[in-house]
Amino acid sequence: MTSPWTLDPDRYFDTEPSVRAKARELYATVADLPLVCPHGHVNPRLFSDPNAVFGSPVDLFIIPDHYITRMLYSHGIPLEQIGVARRDGGETERDHRRIWRLFCSLFHLFDGTPSGVWLKEELVGLFGVDQRPDAANADRLYDVIAARLATPQFRPRELFGRFNVAVLATNNNADDPLSDYQLMHASGWSGDVRPTFRPDHVVDLGAAGWRDNVLRLGQSAGVDVHDYASYIHALEERRRRFKQIGATAADHGVETPWTEPLSAAEAAAHFQRALAGNTQPGDAARFTAHMLIEMARMSAEDGLVMQLHAGSFRNHNPLVYEAFGPDAGGDIPVMTEFTRNLRPLLERFGNDPRLALILFTLDEATYSRELAPLAGHYPAVRLGPPWWFLDSLNGIRRYLDLVIDTTGLHKTTGFNDDTRAFCSIPARHTVWRRASANWVAEQVVRGVIDDEQAAGILRELAGDLARRAYRLLMP
Amino acid sequence: MTSPWTLDPDRYFDTEPSVRAKARELYATVADLPLVCPHGHVNPRLFSDPNAVFGSPVDLFIIPDHYITRMLYSHGIPLEQIGVARRDGGETERDHRRIWRLFCSLFHLFDGTPSGVWLKEELVGLFGVDQRPDAANADRLYDVIAARLATPQFRPRELFGRFNVAVLATNNNADDPLSDYQLMHASGWSGDVRPTFRPDHVVDLGAAGWRDNVLRLGQSAGVDVHDYASYIHALEERRRRFKQIGATAADHGVETPWTEPLSAAEAAAHFQRALAGNTQPGDAARFTAHMLIEMARMSAEDGLVMQLHAGSFRNHNPLVYEAFGPDAGGDIPVMTEFTRNLRPLLERFGNDPRLALILFTLDEATYSRELAPLAGHYPAVRLGPPWWFLDSLNGIRRYLDLVIDTTGLHKTTGFNDDTRAFCSIPARHTVWRRASANWVAEQVVRGVIDDEQAAGILRELAGDLARRAYRLLMP
Amino acid sequence: MTSPWTLDPDRYFDTEPSVRAKARELYATVADLPLVCPHGHVNPRLFSDPNAVFGSPVDLFIIPDHYITRMLYSHGIPLEQIGVARRDGGETERDHRRIWRLFCSLFHLFDGTPSGVWLKEELVGLFGVDQRPDAANADRLYDVIAARLATPQFRPRELFGRFNVAVLATNNNADDPLSDYQLMHASGWSGDVRPTFRPDHVVDLGAAGWRDNVLRLGQSAGVDVHDYASYIHALEERRRRFKQIGATAADHGVETPWTEPLSAAEAAAHFQRALAGNTQPGDAARFTAHMLIEMARMSAEDGLVMQLHAGSFRNHNPLVYEAFGPDAGGDIPVMTEFTRNLRPLLERFGNDPRLALILFTLDEATYSRELAPLAGHYPAVRLGPPWWFLDSLNGIRRYLDLVIDTTGLHKTTGFNDDTRAFCSIPARHTVWRRASANWVAEQVVRGVIDDEQAAGILRELAGDLARRAYRLLMP
Repeated sequence: MTSPWTLDPDRYFDTEPSVRAKARELYATVADLPLVCPHGHVNPRLFSDPNAVFGSPVDLFIIPDHYITRMLYSHGIPLEQIGVARRDGGETERDHRRIWRLFCSLFHLFDGTPSGVWLKEELVGLFGVDQRPDAANADRLYDVIAARLATPQFRPRELFGRFNVAVLATNNNADDPLSDYQLMHASGWSGDVRPTFRPDHVVDLGAAGWRDNVLRLGQSAGVDVHDYASYIHALEERRRRFKQIGATAADHGVETPWTEPLSAAEAAAHFQRALAGNTQPGDAARFTAHMLIEMARMSAEDGLVMQLHAGSFRNHNPLVYEAFGPDAGGDIPVMTEFTRNLRPLLERFGNDPRLALILFTLDEATYSRELAPLAGHYPAVRLGPPWWFLDSLNGIRRYLDLVIDTTGLHKTTGFNDDTRAFCSIPARHTVWRRASANWVAEQVVRGVIDDEQAAGILRELAGDLARRAYRLLMP
Repeated sequence: MTSPWTLDPDRYFDTEPSVRAKARELYATVADLPLVCPHGHVNPRLFSDPNAVFGSPVDLFIIPDHYITRMLYSHGIPLEQIGVARRDGGETERDHRRIWRLFCSLFHLFDGTPSGVWLKEELVGLFGVDQRPDAANADRLYDVIAARLATPQFRPRELFGRFNVAVLATNNNADDPLSDYQLMHASGWSGDVRPTFRPDHVVDLGAAGWRDNVLRLGQSAGVDVHDYASYIHALEERRRRFKQIGATAADHGVETPWTEPLSAAEAAAHFQRALAGNTQPGDAARFTAHMLIEMARMSAEDGLVMQLHAGSFRNHNPLVYEAFGPDAGGDIPVMTEFTRNLRPLLERFGNDPRLALILFTLDEATYSRELAPLAGHYPAVRLGPPWWFLDSLNGIRRYLDLVIDTTGLHKTTGFNDDTRAFCSIPARHTVWRRASANWVAEQVVRGVIDDEQAAGILRELAGDLARRAYRLLMP
Repeated sequence: MTSPWTLDPDRYFDTEPSVRAKARELYATVADLPLVCPHGHVNPRLFSDPNAVFGSPVDLFIIPDHYITRMLYSHGIPLEQIGVARRDGGETERDHRRIWRLFCSLFHLFDGTPSGVWLKEELVGLFGVDQRPDAANADRLYDVIAARLATPQFRPRELFGRFNVAVLATNNNADDPLSDYQLMHASGWSGDVRPTFRPDHVVDLGAAGWRDNVLRLGQSAGVDVHDYASYIHALEERRRRFKQIGATAADHGVETPWTEPLSAAEAAAHFQRALAGNTQPGDAARFTAHMLIEMARMSAEDGLVMQLHAGSFRNHNPLVYEAFGPDAGGDIPVMTEFTRNLRPLLERFGNDPRLALILFTLDEATYSRELAPLAGHYPAVRLGPPWWFLDSLNGIRRYLDLVIDTTGLHKTTGFNDDTRAFCSIPARHTVWRRASANWVAEQVVRGVIDDEQAAGILRELAGDLARRAYRLLMP
């Protein structure tokens, strides 16, 4: 028989008693602070529809979470077998109990991983599960979770309050009608959910359906996009609209952070060739390099915080991409260079007090080598938290050890959960806050940080840095 | 006088008492498990000849160990002075006592290094040495070790049993006659020693004597190699023969893991030009890039596990290479890129359940950035253990911290000792097992891994992962 | 009210009691050893003029320290506002009390950074400050520090003795008249201050005013530089003169450590084109690549230790560079490659026992991948300590963990402070020695290093390695 599955109140802290005691003391001061969530991928429909529900345990925990599905896939489980929808509408497993049983029987695959940590936090902390999942208890756990999900207390809006989310930013295509936000506002619901302006699909000339994307952009902006000037105008219009409805940030994902301005004529020519379906080799990379500078200009002018996520080779596995589309786990990081690539942008806007540029990396070699020195010099530059594959207890530790020396704490931006999985948000913030408390505690016990500053520093890490960096009102 | 030289029973464990106690408890459960050695460079003649001996202490500890010789060389000791054979047959020191004295007088050079750790494990644990080597005790220690080596208990086959080696894979050129294995089998000796198929010298068009290598390959396969098709046929024949005699794996060493298919006509043309001694610039790199995919195809078909070791610039020091040949310590790692380089291979075989591709790196920047995400997605990909310069207490620690988050434990492959020095094998496994026990212990005490799983996880790390990854029968 | 600001006697040590106790015990054996400072940027005029003073607290702590000014600048403080001189002589703040108040009000920006650690060491340890700086106590602290600075005990020569500096190397352009050293020697002052030969501005064809630099080089050498041969002759003459006056080392700073010989004719042609103001694209990089080998030759011949600092993209921020000139905080590291780049140099001089080549990096990915293997093989190569952005408690820890495994301790070179800020020198050595003591202590408690060796190893790290590597006489 299995022993009870519980959460250690001192979990994730250093094992040495003096650090542990200080970490515990510090953590207690931030454990109940509201969650600041300035970057993520939660579906806004969860909140625009007051009757939205999460579905089955499998709908909640497995199908939408590419951290989970990629791990199962890597062990030879076909994605169809765990209910991931095929693009072609082909057969996939629809029996969620069956999927859940498989998942529980493979729970050991997540031992020692951040997914394993988040799952336990959620299962024990939110759903009251008291046994580690396995083949034998799978059905019972399914019932326990399904029963809770069926209660009104587990509707998204209810959980938003219970999780104590202060603010949640979503991630939206530049042509998003933003009707979910209008509905939320109109409904009188008090939750603070904000869109984020994401123009990748209209900036990357090589994006699937780029021309259609641009036409939809024009429609959403009420602008007839027929040339580069009207395209820029449409982008500006949409940014204005995003701001109006609450956005404080834009988000840009690129494989490489190359920036290089084009002359107005070159930019117009690139755009025109693309509209005509006549893109030349190299055009897409050059145009993106130019548009990042153009977007920095817009951010400097309209005040939307500019987030730059670099270094992911998207859809690396063609077989998975063709069958299941993007975001199915086949994104693999690549070596990234910021110092030379960002220089043209920083030359123009790095000293501009109006711009806030937040950099994210998947290449840890750039933390101490490039990112910390850039953020430690340019007024406009800030560092995003450890992201994606690096959002883990180890990743957080390495991040703090590698960047604070040079950037200091106050050019970092606290935490963001960057998740599609709404119910995992408290777990992710708990891990960050505990890891941060532990890091501050160790600096205090080792005499690096003055004890009197510790609680204030942790409060910054737990939420205030994120608020300030993302220009979200302090409460 | 020197105080006694002993091995601390808690060595290499964390100093914090709760982690140390848990590590000690866990380590005890695996300390006596048989050693699984799926990759290494031990000379099979040690076991095919029942009367083989190790020679002098210098033959055992110094001359064949390029970890030792390169360190001495780096401090200005000519390799001739420590008995390394010159290619030209020129003078080298033959007085082993003299070499041993020099070595003992320089023992401090190994303080804090893995070689220092292994040496102490061997000298104390295996040879009963009770004093740290120095100039004063060198002769006495020489006598102690030589006396033991002269006993029948210190013959290789005896030690194989005493070390409790479950299985030992060697590393063999593709044209190896494999007669050592036939002799072993014929002799009725029960030790499980297996060859590994290593075709680098017939795949790399730029390898010294490539044409002769290919001719020898053909002879060993009984195939008249005169074109690309017969070359492929010879390779397949030899793989069949290696499998027959016990091989479960192939091994490929490349400077860069670039993969790119050639058309059949191009491949044939490259091969033909090389046979004619007419290789063009770039041919060798292109042909290797092609052959890695071809080798993946063969592995998918015949089931030999494909090991890929990338990132070593071989024979960097021409002076040393000319005088002493390869493997004389002049191999230096280089920056390595896997994400883009492996894509053509993975596109073809990364989703193939028949293929097991084990990746090794000397570039730690690739652990979290590329390797863990690749192994955490592609069913065919697994990660090899920290290799060569990275096989150390610190290297193991960093490896576990950097890869487990994303790959999980079950896409890693435990440990392999990768050594020529047979007597160092138990020391290397001891270091790995103690470091692993300590890592698991810390995860348990910090609440990351459930206590009930700990012993099972450590058992995997200590041998079962290696068995499974290398398709070696579970006992 | 603020609690007293003090230095914990166990600061920077591990929190675990057995490591802490051993670190404390070991540190006590080196705490009072003289400081060996083989590389830095202290102005020799501080010592050539017996009446030199440090000026105000702002002259001492803020204006000349680009670690401090870049951090303030990164938070939007214009450099003019903290008294940094503009190239054009434009307005900058001259009220040092006002600058000091601003600095104290922003003291939290340095929490957790090495600058914060050094500042506290200096303020508490040297100036007897007993409160953490803040807006409220800024004026009082200013008075306390200014009063001490006004006493004869705080003159540079006095502090040199009080700091127990055994030897201090400065950094001097190749055409430096070296009159400061003549004055020091003539004055009968016993302090050991030595120049270092730095030829970057006459080697880099693209350096500002290269032609004038070369003419000044010729004048300082008494050589009419009109062609490549006379240029080489002038360099050799100046090296001879630097040696004569006490230099034991040369220093070379490059963006990339590319080395590649030119033929005599090519080198002459490059030089001639540059003299004629007719440099072609690529000339500067090729010429530097050639000159690094030429400098290695000179070092092999004249015995000056060759330091190579690679990987900084200088003056990244054109706005700051134009207004304030070089060394104003806008230097950002870049990815660096040593294995391939250094091969042509090492092929020629890597095995030469006369050469000592000390390598420095800002790219930590190269520690275990390239630098440790190079120093662990080539007799000529040694590793410099963690440098600039990496000179911190975390940086030192990572350095020791990443390089000692492969290089061993005895191919490293201990510490150098590399600072312009003379008063920060004891603080920097204290951090290094405490971090080193802690590292050795942990190796002992974990059973990696024999207890009997520990004190000797720490003594090496605390100064003897630096003396030996820089060919400074042992006392």
